[in-house]
Amino acid sequence: MQRIALRKMLEQFYMEDIGSGDLSAQLISDCDNQQALIYAKQDGIVAGVEVIVEAFAVLDAEVRVSLLKKDGDEIAYGERIATLSGNPSILLTGERVVLNLLQRMSGIATATRSAIRTLNDPAIRICDTRKTTPGLRMLEKYAVTAGGGYNHRFGLYDGIMIKDNHIAAEGSISAAVAKAKAKHGHMVKIEVEIEDENQLREAIAAGPDIIMFDNCDPDTVRRFAQLTPPHIVTEASGGIDMRTLPTYRGTGVHYISLGFLTHSVSSLDISMDIVTGREQAQTAER
Amino acid sequence: MQRIALRKMLEQFYMEDIGSGDLSAQLISDCDNQQALIYAKQDGIVAGVEVIVEAFAVLDAEVRVSLLKKDGDEIAYGERIATLSGNPSILLTGERVVLNLLQRMSGIATATRSAIRTLNDPAIRICDTRKTTPGLRMLEKYAVTAGGGYNHRFGLYDGIMIKDNHIAAEGSISAAVAKAKAKHGHMVKIEVEIEDENQLREAIAAGPDIIMFDNCDPDTVRRFAQLTPPHIVTEASGGIDMRTLPTYRGTGVHYISLGFLTHSVSSLDISMDIVTGREQAQTAER
Amino acid sequence: MQRIALRKMLEQFYMEDIGSGDLSAQLISDCDNQQALIYAKQDGIVAGVEVIVEAFAVLDAEVRVSLLKKDGDEIAYGERIATLSGNPSILLTGERVVLNLLQRMSGIATATRSAIRTLNDPAIRICDTRKTTPGLRMLEKYAVTAGGGYNHRFGLYDGIMIKDNHIAAEGSISAAVAKAKAKHGHMVKIEVEIEDENQLREAIAAGPDIIMFDNCDPDTVRRFAQLTPPHIVTEASGGIDMRTLPTYRGTGVHYISLGFLTHSVSSLDISMDIVTGREQAQTAER
Amino acid sequence: MQRIALRKMLEQFYMEDIGSGDLSAQLISDCDNQQALIYAKQDGIVAGVEVIVEAFAVLDAEVRVSLLKKDGDEIAYGERIATLSGNPSILLTGERVVLNLLQRMSGIATATRSAIRTLNDPAIRICDTRKTTPGLRMLEKYAVTAGGGYNHRFGLYDGIMIKDNHIAAEGSISAAVAKAKAKHGHMVKIEVEIEDENQLREAIAAGPDIIMFDNCDPDTVRRFAQLTPPHIVTEASGGIDMRTLPTYRGTGVHYISLGFLTHSVSSLDISMDIVTGREQAQTAER
Amino acid sequence: MQRIALRKMLEQFYMEDIGSGDLSAQLISDCDNQQALIYAKQDGIVAGVEVIVEAFAVLDAEVRVSLLKKDGDEIAYGERIATLSGNPSILLTGERVVLNLLQRMSGIATATRSAIRTLNDPAIRICDTRKTTPGLRMLEKYAVTAGGGYNHRFGLYDGIMIKDNHIAAEGSISAAVAKAKAKHGHMVKIEVEIEDENQLREAIAAGPDIIMFDNCDPDTVRRFAQLTPPHIVTEASGGIDMRTLPTYRGTGVHYISLGFLTHSVSSLDISMDIVTGREQAQTAER
Amino acid sequence: MQRIALRKMLEQFYMEDIGSGDLSAQLISDCDNQQALIYAKQDGIVAGVEVIVEAFAVLDAEVRVSLLKKDGDEIAYGERIATLSGNPSILLTGERVVLNLLQRMSGIATATRSAIRTLNDPAIRICDTRKTTPGLRMLEKYAVTAGGGYNHRFGLYDGIMIKDNHIAAEGSISAAVAKAKAKHGHMVKIEVEIEDENQLREAIAAGPDIIMFDNCDPDTVRRFAQLTPPHIVTEASGGIDMRTLPTYRGTGVHYISLGFLTHSVSSLDISMDIVTGREQAQTAER
Repeated sequence: MQRIALRKMLEQFYMEDIGSGDLSAQLISDCDNQQALIYAKQDGIVAGVEVIVEAFAVLDAEVRVSLLKKDGDEIAYGERIATLSGNPSILLTGERVVLNLLQRMSGIATATRSAIRTLNDPAIRICDTRKTTPGLRMLEKYAVTAGGGYNHRFGLYDGIMIKDNHIAAEGSISAAVAKAKAKHGHMVKIEVEIEDENQLREAIAAGPDIIMFDNCDPDTVRRFAQLTPPHIVTEASGGIDMRTLPTYRGTGVHYISLGFLTHSVSSLDISMDIVTGREQAQTAER
Repeated sequence: MQRIALRKMLEQFYMEDIGSGDLSAQLISDCDNQQALIYAKQDGIVAGVEVIVEAFAVLDAEVRVSLLKKDGDEIAYGERIATLSGNPSILLTGERVVLNLLQRMSGIATATRSAIRTLNDPAIRICDTRKTTPGLRMLEKYAVTAGGGYNHRFGLYDGIMIKDNHIAAEGSISAAVAKAKAKHGHMVKIEVEIEDENQLREAIAAGPDIIMFDNCDPDTVRRFAQLTPPHIVTEASGGIDMRTLPTYRGTGVHYISLGFLTHSVSSLDISMDIVTGREQAQTAER
Repeated sequence: MQRIALRKMLEQFYMEDIGSGDLSAQLISDCDNQQALIYAKQDGIVAGVEVIVEAFAVLDAEVRVSLLKKDGDEIAYGERIATLSGNPSILLTGERVVLNLLQRMSGIATATRSAIRTLNDPAIRICDTRKTTPGLRMLEKYAVTAGGGYNHRFGLYDGIMIKDNHIAAEGSISAAVAKAKAKHGHMVKIEVEIEDENQLREAIAAGPDIIMFDNCDPDTVRRFAQLTPPHIVTEASGGIDMRTLPTYRGTGVHYISLGFLTHSVSSLDISMDIVTGREQAQTAER
Repeated sequence: MQRIALRKMLEQFYMEDIGSGDLSAQLISDCDNQQALIYAKQDGIVAGVEVIVEAFAVLDAEVRVSLLKKDGDEIAYGERIATLSGNPSILLTGERVVLNLLQRMSGIATATRSAIRTLNDPAIRICDTRKTTPGLRMLEKYAVTAGGGYNHRFGLYDGIMIKDNHIAAEGSISAAVAKAKAKHGHMVKIEVEIEDENQLREAIAAGPDIIMFDNCDPDTVRRFAQLTPPHIVTEASGGIDMRTLPTYRGTGVHYISLGFLTHSVSSLDISMDIVTGREQAQTAER
Repeated sequence: MQRIALRKMLEQFYMEDIGSGDLSAQLISDCDNQQALIYAKQDGIVAGVEVIVEAFAVLDAEVRVSLLKKDGDEIAYGERIATLSGNPSILLTGERVVLNLLQRMSGIATATRSAIRTLNDPAIRICDTRKTTPGLRMLEKYAVTAGGGYNHRFGLYDGIMIKDNHIAAEGSISAAVAKAKAKHGHMVKIEVEIEDENQLREAIAAGPDIIMFDNCDPDTVRRFAQLTPPHIVTEASGGIDMRTLPTYRGTGVHYISLGFLTHSVSSLDISMDIVTGREQAQTAER
Repeated sequence: MQRIALRKMLEQFYMEDIGSGDLSAQLISDCDNQQALIYAKQDGIVAGVEVIVEAFAVLDAEVRVSLLKKDGDEIAYGERIATLSGNPSILLTGERVVLNLLQRMSGIATATRSAIRTLNDPAIRICDTRKTTPGLRMLEKYAVTAGGGYNHRFGLYDGIMIKDNHIAAEGSISAAVAKAKAKHGHMVKIEVEIEDENQLREAIAAGPDIIMFDNCDPDTVRRFAQLTPPHIVTEASGGIDMRTLPTYRGTGVHYISLGFLTHSVSSLDISMDIVTGREQAQTAER
């Protein structure tokens, strides 16, 4: 992840949560450093451990973070992700933002890994969409890659997607693709969204980089993939969920994009505990 | 919602999605205004319609938005939420951010309304937590109220929550509450989190504004609610989901806070369609 | 004080004062570190010493600051608040913003302490209002607490104040309080502003958390305080100044809020001196 | 005042005051526009009326503002400064920030006008210092001019002030002035701060644009002003207050700079009233 | 150009130029609207006319702008680009930022058009690099397209460029391209930079989207272009200037990227004149 | 240069270039630190070495930078400006922004030094204008001083320039200067732009600080400079380029301002090379 962007986001998120001050943390007198543990309360895939490091760095340069897992690692109920050491009031103040991000990112990575296993076809890559949470796109798209998935374009600025409205505006798929090639340079990929075989044939003739089969059932996807020449990448998108995903196994399409990976994610349950003095002593003994 | 904050968020979200420019929208030649429809593809509760108005205002003062639903309204598959009229390339550029927010907010409102109906006890209020998406707290907490729920504190700055770590730091619940009362003024509510009856009795004696029963089963909640004098508000929190929610019916607790309303929300499926010339003509005929 | 917010404020304030560069400091050739002293030129209460530390940290990580006083301490003419050591041109560049803030915050703390002593009634708490300097609310409200006072709500977002306009809009105090209770959750305090006994009786019946006696003389405040049941907090506000404050002694009201603490503050005179080489040598000898 | 800067400041100030929303204003149902009056509760000089216009423009384009006074106008108890018309909940939400700024700016303008009258010497100009409230320098320096005063430099970037530390660093006043002239171009004024006659003579020989007599009594100021050749502007500064100001009358110095104009200002008492329906009707009748 | 981004840039640029206020414009009493003309003082290609519209919109909603040229148009000495009408002090305040941007953008467009004509080979596209002015990339890359050129990637985020360091890190071109394909999805173009024929052959085998011939003379470019299969786009880059550009005519390479288009641009001379009353009358007569 | 401003600019520039992440740098596995060299590929004057230090500090606190040249130093083809040591992927990610700034700033310093040598008259100072790149004024004006030139005013806020439009608005030069003196204080310089001898005589009588001879040939400049009394600074401006500059030698004017120093700068060619392991070993042996 891009660190300057990440730090700015974390500053903004702490401003949102702490505002003019943590009224409860002010009750805690300054005292010795304490340890804290971040651990999973659910099996899944971890993503976003760098958030832990940068978040506490933003709050207080003195907090020490040791990471025990790296992004993409499987984690089981009870396993530790990180240990922290620092001023207990800082640890408490910083907890919620870290967990909110880590839970969401790990939830996305877990869903992505699960989709890959459910599909169970190494020839097809799972990718995301632009249906991400506004403001969190960098983090959520990163989490998809941590889970083993791929990123579709990041925004409207780094890839061309020719949809029905663009086609209607230009008159035909051929005209729209030709205009895109005439107007844009060699560093931009052009994808065309098609809905039926006529459109597919027209798209193939127009020669985009990618053709997306919109809302097609597995049999149609298989047929369309076979019709498409090998130098054009194919993608299936629209209306595919965990339940229908296995039916796309073996269709020969290159990518399946799944909006639910980011728009309807369940957080992975992750907690943080401050270790009391007695617990610390016991830990030290072991 | 606070309009200055909302506009700043929308500007940030469009910067994230559009970046240096919408490469695909540039393919659409300037042309006459077109109409667009925003409509539900799933039954649920609408929240965030003001986002539609402000988002297009941020992009282009010329787009006209007519709202057909207001926040909190029930909506059925196929029903329209808003109609828009404007430059088609602006409509396409603006679509994704609007839908990403509207789907999420409506998903939260729908989950909240569903929780209220599932609980089916008008004497107990459903409320949210701080487990919101970083950067979107204002929108997500607003969506909870649109669904009929209530807001817990907005951040660490507008309410005191005394948890085990604070209690450990001060030595006892009594000491922690006393310190909170000594340190903070009359505009701040003080809530104490308790786990067992001993703590409850100590908390009642300390006299906070609210006592929260952490991770208690329905019977315990009922017993604790009866033990608590009426001038102290009670709240049940922790580990309650849609499945277990009905078992808390009739427990007499005042509030149940549910983290999943915001941390694991499923978007409500909402779409936007640009109306083609022919469709517009047909619509006009009717 | 919240450190992320404080640092952002200091960056903004230095941008305002330094702009494209300190033209005078550029005259000072790079040279050895020097020491500087920050000391009082007037008796009073210190507030804002953390500003000294964070301000120079924002300018240059190499400046060392030793604090000799903590917030809330009494200070006499000539007494030192802090010693600094660093590049003399950085010390000169940083001086004005630090003093402007420290003088104002200490002025507020001094006025607050003075109000408490003038009132001389430990049963009544002095608190502030929203009549703070725009942009400095966090610092000014903090300074009030450093002086021994309490904070009223921080903004329009963390407490409900029902005034005549709200009452007029809803038709009655009862209706306005009822609407506030119906609309807002358990973490928000509700205060009603009343002007006469009829309103007081209506307010008591409506059951807010706090009743504020607006612009009432001491006898009225005493009578209203007696009429109000003990579970409702009382506050006197409006038109009370240092001269009239003692007349409110013993009225039994819980809080007196004073706008002048922040809207008409006199800075406490505080200076910074760079110690010359000879002085440093002499200091070292002692 | 610079409008882009002013609008950005107002957005920031409303974010500070409104945060996630005005909880009390939410109690007011949408209703017809109402009128409001902004009027003085104390005699003085008005400054900052443009703030009223821009502040409500930032909140809501629909509020109409009519200004009845312009900056620098004298105003008497009870006189109106502006009338407003708009949604009553917007008027209430916007009130506090507008008054906090207008009161402070008018307090500064009033103090400035008062200083000019107290000095009562048209040959001497009153000017401000850099002892302004961090974040508000543009507004406060503008208020000084509205009161009839002049602005000293705005920051460290737009004028050179050679003080004892700079002199010590360069070895002599002559060396410091020579270095300033060698290093900086023709658009920058150079001022030297002197404390005694030796320094004055050295400064005159060095030829700066301005010489400032630091902490000098009226007789010394008179003598130093006579010693200084006419092409060098003179300024008296340090330790001059309202009480001692008249003793500087006729000293022949060109400028007297007064820190208290901005660092210890008393707000001018200004209020805003929402006009009720009956009052509006009565007003209309007249 | 993206309008939200453009407006934010313009606000920032006016803050830089106007700061706390335009001291000279304050000398102009408020008076009737005047007209102004923006016109060329040199032949060239116009780019950035939208900047005129948005810049004055940022300063003052009342200024009216009529555009007489559109981006990419040729313009001759003396020809008008736009006419403006508004408050003369606003026109003067706004002038410099508008001209600084318009001159630079038109300078870039003119250089681009000139490069295209100098090369005089319609089969080869001219494109830019990342050697743009920090902070102005969107504007400068837009100006290249206005001149008829194409954009290379916008940043490090929207295209992969495998250079010698990446190759060294991975051990070989094949390994680096394979890693890029394994790691990144279908929306990202992969370009490999090669220096000799061995590298070219390895690159062709690795199958990137684009191969860049770094610092190659025309004969080498011609030979390498012939060696490269047609489905791989070719680009020549490095050390090509206006003088050597014609020698690349007919080499068969697809793109030539030119850093000097943006890193060493000469502004096109463009001026703004306020039309005096008499001139306006004369203009009206015609 | 002002460090807070510089760091904020660098953060913004890296956000522009890196966006959501450096896709190519992600190909480089974490590995040992490497060294890099920044060196000139063209003779010239260096400016902006502090940018190297601060830019990498913004990206990664671990990168070490050793500066071998200081601003204003002459540098020859092949000479080193700085050596760096750090994570190779950070070095690659950071390279472009650093070079884009350093090349431009050094280009400006080189042009300035060249202008001074071309003019070859130590009695005349070369200065810049406000024709700088929007967003980079601080850096570009700094580069002019590094080359040996002087800065004209930084913006509209720190100096008064009375031009024909201001004169027309006030009726005469005398009236405009009188108004400027009446309205503004002693820290602001007043410059009048004149075009002919009548205007010059009127300007001299009005007594500004500086008179600028607009678009005058060398003979006129010489005559006007002689006519102007010595206490008024003189400046020649408009239409002077490298070719005509020598003809102004000996004219007796104090300043010549040159817009092309900043609006039409050629970057100085500067490169960065990552040193491979073998090269490092060889370097170490020597």
